[in-house]
Amino acid sequence: MVPHLTTALNGPINELEQRILDSMPAIERWFRLEWMEHTPLFYSSVDVRNAGFKLAPVDTSLCPHGWNNLSPAMQPLAVQAAMVAIEKICPEAKNLLLVAENKSNKSDYNWAYLSNLAQLRRIFHMAGLNVRIGSIDSSIKKSTTLTLPNGESVTLEPVCRNNDRIGLKDFDPCTILLNNELTTGVPGILEDLPTQYLLPPLHGSGSVRRKSEHYRCYDEVVKRFGKLLGVDPWFISPMYTTCKDIDLSQETGVDSLSTTVDSLLAKIKKKYKEYGIQEKPFVVIKTGCSSLASKDLSVNKTQTVSTGVLMIRNAKELREHPDLSAFAAQASCKRMGDPNNQLLREVIVQEGVHTKERLDDAVAEPVVYTMDRYVVGGFYRVHAGRNVDENLCAPDSNYVPLAFADGTELPQAGMKPGASTPNRFYMYGVIARLAMLAASYELEASDPNLETYE
Amino acid sequence: MVPHLTTALNGPINELEQRILDSMPAIERWFRLEWMEHTPLFYSSVDVRNAGFKLAPVDTSLCPHGWNNLSPAMQPLAVQAAMVAIEKICPEAKNLLLVAENKSNKSDYNWAYLSNLAQLRRIFHMAGLNVRIGSIDSSIKKSTTLTLPNGESVTLEPVCRNNDRIGLKDFDPCTILLNNELTTGVPGILEDLPTQYLLPPLHGSGSVRRKSEHYRCYDEVVKRFGKLLGVDPWFISPMYTTCKDIDLSQETGVDSLSTTVDSLLAKIKKKYKEYGIQEKPFVVIKTGCSSLASKDLSVNKTQTVSTGVLMIRNAKELREHPDLSAFAAQASCKRMGDPNNQLLREVIVQEGVHTKERLDDAVAEPVVYTMDRYVVGGFYRVHAGRNVDENLCAPDSNYVPLAFADGTELPQAGMKPGASTPNRFYMYGVIARLAMLAASYELEASDPNLETYE
Repeated sequence: MVPHLTTALNGPINELEQRILDSMPAIERWFRLEWMEHTPLFYSSVDVRNAGFKLAPVDTSLCPHGWNNLSPAMQPLAVQAAMVAIEKICPEAKNLLLVAENKSNKSDYNWAYLSNLAQLRRIFHMAGLNVRIGSIDSSIKKSTTLTLPNGESVTLEPVCRNNDRIGLKDFDPCTILLNNELTTGVPGILEDLPTQYLLPPLHGSGSVRRKSEHYRCYDEVVKRFGKLLGVDPWFISPMYTTCKDIDLSQETGVDSLSTTVDSLLAKIKKKYKEYGIQEKPFVVIKTGCSSLASKDLSVNKTQTVSTGVLMIRNAKELREHPDLSAFAAQASCKRMGDPNNQLLREVIVQEGVHTKERLDDAVAEPVVYTMDRYVVGGFYRVHAGRNVDENLCAPDSNYVPLAFADGTELPQAGMKPGASTPNRFYMYGVIARLAMLAASYELEASDPNLETYE
Repeated sequence: MVPHLTTALNGPINELEQRILDSMPAIERWFRLEWMEHTPLFYSSVDVRNAGFKLAPVDTSLCPHGWNNLSPAMQPLAVQAAMVAIEKICPEAKNLLLVAENKSNKSDYNWAYLSNLAQLRRIFHMAGLNVRIGSIDSSIKKSTTLTLPNGESVTLEPVCRNNDRIGLKDFDPCTILLNNELTTGVPGILEDLPTQYLLPPLHGSGSVRRKSEHYRCYDEVVKRFGKLLGVDPWFISPMYTTCKDIDLSQETGVDSLSTTVDSLLAKIKKKYKEYGIQEKPFVVIKTGCSSLASKDLSVNKTQTVSTGVLMIRNAKELREHPDLSAFAAQASCKRMGDPNNQLLREVIVQEGVHTKERLDDAVAEPVVYTMDRYVVGGFYRVHAGRNVDENLCAPDSNYVPLAFADGTELPQAGMKPGASTPNRFYMYGVIARLAMLAASYELEASDPNLETYE
C-alpha cells in the first residue's frame, strides 16, 4: 500500500497506470512473497521519472537525505514502518546512533540537512528509541549544537570506538543508522562491529556500490514483474549498457563511448517506433560508482553537480559537450584516488526518461521514500530552469511535499464510476519498491559475508 | 507510535500525561518486548474515558465496527498495519472473506454499518487481498447488493461450507475475518476449519468471552506497566469486583449486589481521598458476558441499549433504578437461553470513570482503533444529551473523526519550550494498546487448543 498523495499529473490515466491500479492486490501479494525471500532496505529514497508512456527509477539512495521534505501528515506512516523495521532487527533495541554526513566544516551543515537529521531523530524517537546523532567527521571533535531557524537544535557528537563497538560519550547503541553515503570510502572506525547492527551494511555504502550491479538487479526484478502484469518490462525500466576501462582524455575513449551511445540510441528508437512514441530519445551517461551519483558530485563550490551526469541526444553532442572533460576528470580522480589517472573503470550509458510532471510550469520529479518494505511518503523535486530531459538534481532545486489527496477512495469494485479519483501516486510507490527490491538483491549479491550464511 | 490527532481537551497536561509523554521510548520498547511473547489482536477498538485525574479503557471490541468513522487521512496507516498483520498470518494470502454482522432482515443493515464494511474491504484490498463479504445470516440466501448514499455498494453473499472449508460461490478464502461478534453463540458453520485462518478465533467471540477475565488480564498488564512508569496502576485502571450467580428478581440478590456496590464505592472514596480528588464516585454494573456489552443490548426496537449497563452512585440508587429489572431480565435471558431463568452467572461492578472530554459542549469519549500492534486512528463518540458519568454507547450517539493535528512535533529534547504541541492522543493510544494487550493475554488464557501448542 502506498499513501494516496496528490500528484501534479491530472491528465487521463494511461494504459500502464490503469494496469497497475487494476492489479493492486496481485502486486501487493507479489511484493509480500518477494519479502519472504529478500530483506528490504532499512530505508531508501527513489527518484522516479514519469514520461507518460513509460516510467522508471533514476536513482536509489540507501542513505536518503531530505526526510524533512515529507509532509507532516506522513510522519505516522514513517514511524509505524520504523517500528516494524526495528522490531525485526532488534526488538530489545534501546539506543540508536544516527551517523550524519561528513562536511568539511561545521558551517557546511545547512539547515535543510540538519532538519533532515531532526526529522529522522523524531521518527525513531516516536518509534521507541533513544536517538543521538554522531559524526565521524574529523572536524567534529567535541559535542556541537547547531540551531535551526524554527528553534529546534541538532547536536552532533564525535563517534568514538571502544574495542569492537562504537558509540558516543555515555551512549552505547545497539543499532547504527548511516545517513552518510561514505562516498570517499569506508572509514576504519565503522569496520568490524560484530555486536552492533550497522545499517545499511558497509557493502551498501556509496564507494562500494556499483550502479551497473543495481541496474542488473533491477532488470531481473522488472522482468518478473512485467510477466505478472503482462507488460513489456521496458515500460518501467530504462535500457542501459556499460563501457569499461575507458579514458575520455583520449580520442579512442571518446570513440568507444560514442559508439555505445549511438548503439543504445538506435535501440531506443526501435522501441519508440514499436510503440508509436513521438518523443526525441536521449541517453544519460553516468559513472559506474554510486558515490558519484549526480547529487554527490559537487567536489568544490565552483563546480556544478551537473557534471556527474551527461544528457546526450547523439554522439556528436557527446564530443562537443562542454562538461565532458569535467565529467571525465572528476569521475576518474574520485574513482582512483589519483588525480592523474584518467581511466574510468566503468561508465554507464542509460536510456533517458523524460519527465511529464509539472508543478506551476516547472519540471518536477517525484521522490519516493521507503522504510522497511513500506512507502512512507514522497515529494516533488522541482526545477524551474530545467527541461524535461535534464537532470533535476541540481543546487537550485526546490522540494514540494506531496500532501495526502483529498479523496481517498481508489477505483474499485462497488464504486460508482467517476465517484473516486485514482491514486496516481500508487504507481510511483510500486516503481520505487521495485527499485528498492533491486537494491536488496544487489546487497545480497555483493554481501562479502554471504557464504557464512549458507 | 500513535498518530498525532487533535483532541478536544486543551487544558494543561497533567502529571500522568506528562509522565507518559516523557516515557515514550521506554513505553514503545516495553510494548515491543510484550509482542515478542504475545500475539496482538488482528484488529480491535477500545473505548477510553479520560477523567482528567485518571483514564481507563471501558470496552475492548475484537470485532470492531465503525471503521467508516475514521478520518480518511488515517487510511494509509490502517493499510500499512493490515499489511503487517497479513504478512504474519499468511504471506501467501490471496482471498479474504469478511463475515458481516447478522441482522434479522436486509433492511436492518443501516448505511453506517455498510460503510464500515466498505471501509474494511477498501483497507484489505489496498493491503493486497481480494476481499468479498459473506453473511452467515439465514436471511441472506442469495447474493444481495445494498447501495450506500455515496453510490458505493456492498454485496453480501451467503457463506457456504464445503467439507472443512468455508467460502462463497467461486471464492475460497485462506483467511476469514469476523466483523460479527457472534453474540448469540458460535454457529456450527464456523467450527472446525483446520485449513483456514479464522480471526478472531472462536474463543474470542462475544458469547464466549468473559469480561471478568478481560479485567483480570488488564490488571496484570497495568500492574507491570505502572511499575515501568512509576505510577499507581489505579490511575489507568478502574477497580472492579464480581458477583456470581445472583437473581436480581429476589431481594437477596439485590442485597448481595448492593453490598458489593457499597464496598466498591468505599474503596473508590478512599482512593479519591488519597489523591485529593473532589469528584463524586460512581460504579458501573455490567453483565459478565461480553456479548452483553452495552452496545449489543438492543434485543428489540422498543428496548433501549442503556439497560445493558447501570450507572450507580449509591446502593439506594441501585434499588430504585428504573432499569434494574430490564437489566436483570435481559442479561439473564440472553445468558441462559431461557426467559424464565433469572439467574445471572456473573455481574461485574466496576469503578466508573468520568469523562472530561467535550466537543461543542457535548460529552465525548475517544474510541481508538488498532490493527496488529499499531494504533491506526480514532474518533470521538459524542452524546449531547448525556452526562459525564453516563454511558455514551447509545442509539443517538454521534461520531466525530479525529483529524491529524496541525503541528506534528512532539515535545522532545532539542525543541524550544512551547514550540510544539504535545500529542495528547498518544496517551489514548497507550491505554488502548494496554487494553488490546490484555485481550491478547485473555485469548491466550482462554484458548481451548493451548495445550496442543505446548
